[in-house]
Amino acid sequence: MIYLDNAATTKVDKRVLSVMKQYFTKKYGNASSQHLFGQEVKKDLEESRSIIAKSIGARSEEIIFTSGGTESNNLALKGLFFANKDKKRHIITTKIEHDCVLNSCKWLEKQGVKVTYLNVDREGFVNLDELKKAITKDTLLVSIIHGNNEIGTIQNLEAIGKICKENDILFHTDACQSYTKVPINVKKQNLDLVTLNAHKIHGPKGVGALYIRNGIKIVPLAHGGGHERNIRSGTENVAGIVGFAKAVELAKNKHIKHMEKLRDRLIKGILKIENTKLNGPIGKRRLCNNVNICFNDIEGEAIVGYLDSKGIYVSTGSACSSHTLEPSHVLLALGLSALEANSSIRLSLSRENTKEEIDKVLEVLPKIVKKLRKISPFK
Amino acid sequence: MIYLDNAATTKVDKRVLSVMKQYFTKKYGNASSQHLFGQEVKKDLEESRSIIAKSIGARSEEIIFTSGGTESNNLALKGLFFANKDKKRHIITTKIEHDCVLNSCKWLEKQGVKVTYLNVDREGFVNLDELKKAITKDTLLVSIIHGNNEIGTIQNLEAIGKICKENDILFHTDACQSYTKVPINVKKQNLDLVTLNAHKIHGPKGVGALYIRNGIKIVPLAHGGGHERNIRSGTENVAGIVGFAKAVELAKNKHIKHMEKLRDRLIKGILKIENTKLNGPIGKRRLCNNVNICFNDIEGEAIVGYLDSKGIYVSTGSACSSHTLEPSHVLLALGLSALEANSSIRLSLSRENTKEEIDKVLEVLPKIVKKLRKISPFK
Repeated sequence: MIYLDNAATTKVDKRVLSVMKQYFTKKYGNASSQHLFGQEVKKDLEESRSIIAKSIGARSEEIIFTSGGTESNNLALKGLFFANKDKKRHIITTKIEHDCVLNSCKWLEKQGVKVTYLNVDREGFVNLDELKKAITKDTLLVSIIHGNNEIGTIQNLEAIGKICKENDILFHTDACQSYTKVPINVKKQNLDLVTLNAHKIHGPKGVGALYIRNGIKIVPLAHGGGHERNIRSGTENVAGIVGFAKAVELAKNKHIKHMEKLRDRLIKGILKIENTKLNGPIGKRRLCNNVNICFNDIEGEAIVGYLDSKGIYVSTGSACSSHTLEPSHVLLALGLSALEANSSIRLSLSRENTKEEIDKVLEVLPKIVKKLRKISPFK
Repeated sequence: MIYLDNAATTKVDKRVLSVMKQYFTKKYGNASSQHLFGQEVKKDLEESRSIIAKSIGARSEEIIFTSGGTESNNLALKGLFFANKDKKRHIITTKIEHDCVLNSCKWLEKQGVKVTYLNVDREGFVNLDELKKAITKDTLLVSIIHGNNEIGTIQNLEAIGKICKENDILFHTDACQSYTKVPINVKKQNLDLVTLNAHKIHGPKGVGALYIRNGIKIVPLAHGGGHERNIRSGTENVAGIVGFAKAVELAKNKHIKHMEKLRDRLIKGILKIENTKLNGPIGKRRLCNNVNICFNDIEGEAIVGYLDSKGIYVSTGSACSSHTLEPSHVLLALGLSALEANSSIRLSLSRENTKEEIDKVLEVLPKIVKKLRKISPFK
């Protein structure tokens, strides 16, 4: 099997599982229990919080653990809305956000929020002038995805953060795909809220975090016992959190370089197939693990299916969007037609992929494309 | 060590961990991915859903997985509120709910919901006549905890469900403590929503479920990719969910009998200490694993601390309430004074506890109480 769907989720690193195990059957205390057995677990929880905080230049108390990226993004947007609904009611985001940001925004519109969805250029970048022009006195928040989950475009957080700061607007980024792959520093990039999660970086599913700059008021989505500084109640998923922190520790710069090499080899190889086109940018402005190619005249779904039968796992886009059959909103925002969007597939790498796997894909894929083009009704 | 804080959380059963493991490093696909590697995981996810559904007499599609009891309770209350806010705006609950229900209700009051908090009697039972009287034309929901987390009182769901049905009111119960310990049948008890979680039944932390009767509209708290029938988005925590289902399968009636025996041995033994009192009911109307005792004239915290130093872990109440220093709202609702409430401790059993452990506690505890009473400022 060749797994090239790492933007959907990754294999948990054995070293991550190894540190998690003890929290199931040995150190299983409740981190909110007052007894020693609980407090020992609490200590490990706080150590994990500190590891994650440091990784983005934040303070420990600014990290709130959640059940994942979707919850963190919902908490950021809705939590800010409820805390500010009598003050400011305008949010600026983009047309290429993950569904959890877009659908939170759609819900907020029903609650009376005005949302501006910024366009992006052919490579998926936000136009900073358009951003500036969209700002009004009522603007509460700018929420822009850091590394795009479908096309790998890495936005310039520092430039966006500067604009937000100058205009006294809060700045949130969804960094689920970029975390540990692109530097994040909440001070340098002037970030007020950052969404992080574990299962995209060889950590477990069901764990995420939200960085919330000290002093920012957020209304909880989950009220209860007052866990996580009263921002996110619920018994702490300690095994998951400790695994998350371990995954962060295991991520190294050399992995980025490894993935970049494989990515570029894959892109170069696929583009040799005639009538193909890369979606998203090239080089340093693209996530090290993302490849997204439009194969004209054939269905992306069909390519995915044929690769599947060869034990090669890729996707047509976000796994989270598989619940709908619509063409990718991200690809449409780039200016692709619905037909082109539906002819595209995403191949996403991890540090565990090898040159041999890439070469295998490059051997198999052209044949599949050739076969499919032969029977294509679009040609 | 003797662990008697199983109402706070339990040890994950080795057999649960054993089935979970493969989902970290082998079957790690995203259950929403369209490829075979994801779809195999999806199959296991659905099997788990079916196991949990069957255990409460529900249909698979009526089970929505969440990150735990707190999220499920929040989703039930707030999700119903947002779905019905232009129709009905009155909720009936009790004074002895878990903080996540009470604090959700307090937040809903700020959104314009009227909430009635029912009294309970000295044993923690709701008065059905008081419930009937509280119902108005505007009543949307009755939310009453099944087995109380502090005092073990088991409410008569069937009788409450009947009243709700007769009055065309939705009925939600928080069954986090009672699940697998007291029979739950959504049809017989006329339940519309039921909160369940894994970590109280030897499953992992960070996983829960909400039963939502077919046809009931709920607005999601987590918008996104449309997972869980569009009610709860976010990549499915498959390891946790499969572990949850395994924990349900492992729960047997003989465990209940075992815990009841130990519970009654513990209660009987402790009540031999002079000037002590059982909080909550006795016999079948009490959770099989709950003991809560008021030791007059001494601080519960002090007893917990001394037991702690002997490697015996108990609590003064809900671990989730440890974030506040207030006397237990549950014990106050029973009619205890603040002083009595603060003189109480909870000992909660699991199927793994033994007679020998109980006898050890009964040997140690009287000495601690004697010592503390000697130095008590209240005497």
